[in-house]
Amino acid sequence: MLSRPKIGILGSGKGSNMVALHQAVQEGRLDADIALVISDVQEAGILEQASKMGLKHIYLAPGPYRTKLDEQAELSYLQHLQGAGVQWVVLAGFMRILKGEFLRVFHHRVINIHPSLLPSFPGLEAWKQALDYGVKFTGCTVHLVDQGIDTGPIIMQQTVPVSEEDTPQSLHARIQQAEHETYPLAVQKALHSQLKIQGRLCTAEEAG
Amino acid sequence: MLSRPKIGILGSGKGSNMVALHQAVQEGRLDADIALVISDVQEAGILEQASKMGLKHIYLAPGPYRTKLDEQAELSYLQHLQGAGVQWVVLAGFMRILKGEFLRVFHHRVINIHPSLLPSFPGLEAWKQALDYGVKFTGCTVHLVDQGIDTGPIIMQQTVPVSEEDTPQSLHARIQQAEHETYPLAVQKALHSQLKIQGRLCTAEEAG
Repeated sequence: MLSRPKIGILGSGKGSNMVALHQAVQEGRLDADIALVISDVQEAGILEQASKMGLKHIYLAPGPYRTKLDEQAELSYLQHLQGAGVQWVVLAGFMRILKGEFLRVFHHRVINIHPSLLPSFPGLEAWKQALDYGVKFTGCTVHLVDQGIDTGPIIMQQTVPVSEEDTPQSLHARIQQAEHETYPLAVQKALHSQLKIQGRLCTAEEAG
Repeated sequence: MLSRPKIGILGSGKGSNMVALHQAVQEGRLDADIALVISDVQEAGILEQASKMGLKHIYLAPGPYRTKLDEQAELSYLQHLQGAGVQWVVLAGFMRILKGEFLRVFHHRVINIHPSLLPSFPGLEAWKQALDYGVKFTGCTVHLVDQGIDTGPIIMQQTVPVSEEDTPQSLHARIQQAEHETYPLAVQKALHSQLKIQGRLCTAEEAG
């Protein structure tokens, strides 16, 4: 019987990855408890979804900056996560950069998913970047969050073919489908393997 | 019945991609004639292989620079290729950058294969770069050559999984196997589709 670590989910958008993670928990594919969902956007769909699914959720103001949490907000996020007993933080469309103190407290315990095969196309609208570049394959990348933007050690990747007929919307939808399949697998691996981080490299041994 | 364009192959190494292309021609998977093989390295295996396979081949001195052809050498390469009636130039491990005049003469008709999923890992030893970065997928990319290094419009890509046990050697071998499968397909596509190049984007329509 695997332990059930408590995870906290942070998101700014509609929360489709949170829904996928919740389904995986319900179906026994992800051995974890979603202890808290936090959004930096008061009217974000992710809070409504969390409410519907009976998950504890809260809006926490991010402070005055556009792309990060201010110091006070970061402390508030940390307090709520720790208060809920959260051991792993899982980002699901969270549009703010997490900085030093947060990453020190949750060292190697913040997981993100990015809609490209990193290191190609970090940053915003990665599906559009991929389409503009003319790649024939893109995908998604689950990685540990470090101080950089989309640079941390990679836990899992999945490839997605690009077709000549793709629009940004159709490609984005196909990548999101891959995300919903990959994210629960990768989070399960992170929580229940002995992740070995050496520099940029992330390998896993099955926990005993 | 498809036409048989004449291709010239340039290589600096052992020539395994040339062998794969030659096999594809022999087996009717690539409708082309290999009209000339040129190497900038007198003792390169590619010349020996070309000799064994009965292909016209020649060593042409590259001039004094380490990473490109000098102007005179470039002219000599061009003269030999044009003299052999070559319509498309296919690079098979050619370790020198081709510059303005060459690319003007063979505009959008120089094809290269690179051992990564570009734009990740351009440059040398891409398999080692991929392993050091910790990606879970890499691959190979067939692209038209432009003025940049590994930046031209992409014709075809193939993905290759990376395993936790991989060494640079084992990963390189797996990528090369993908190259040998992909390169003939991509060259066939380039030669016999109406490639449509719009900016970076390369799409193909089947020729009538």
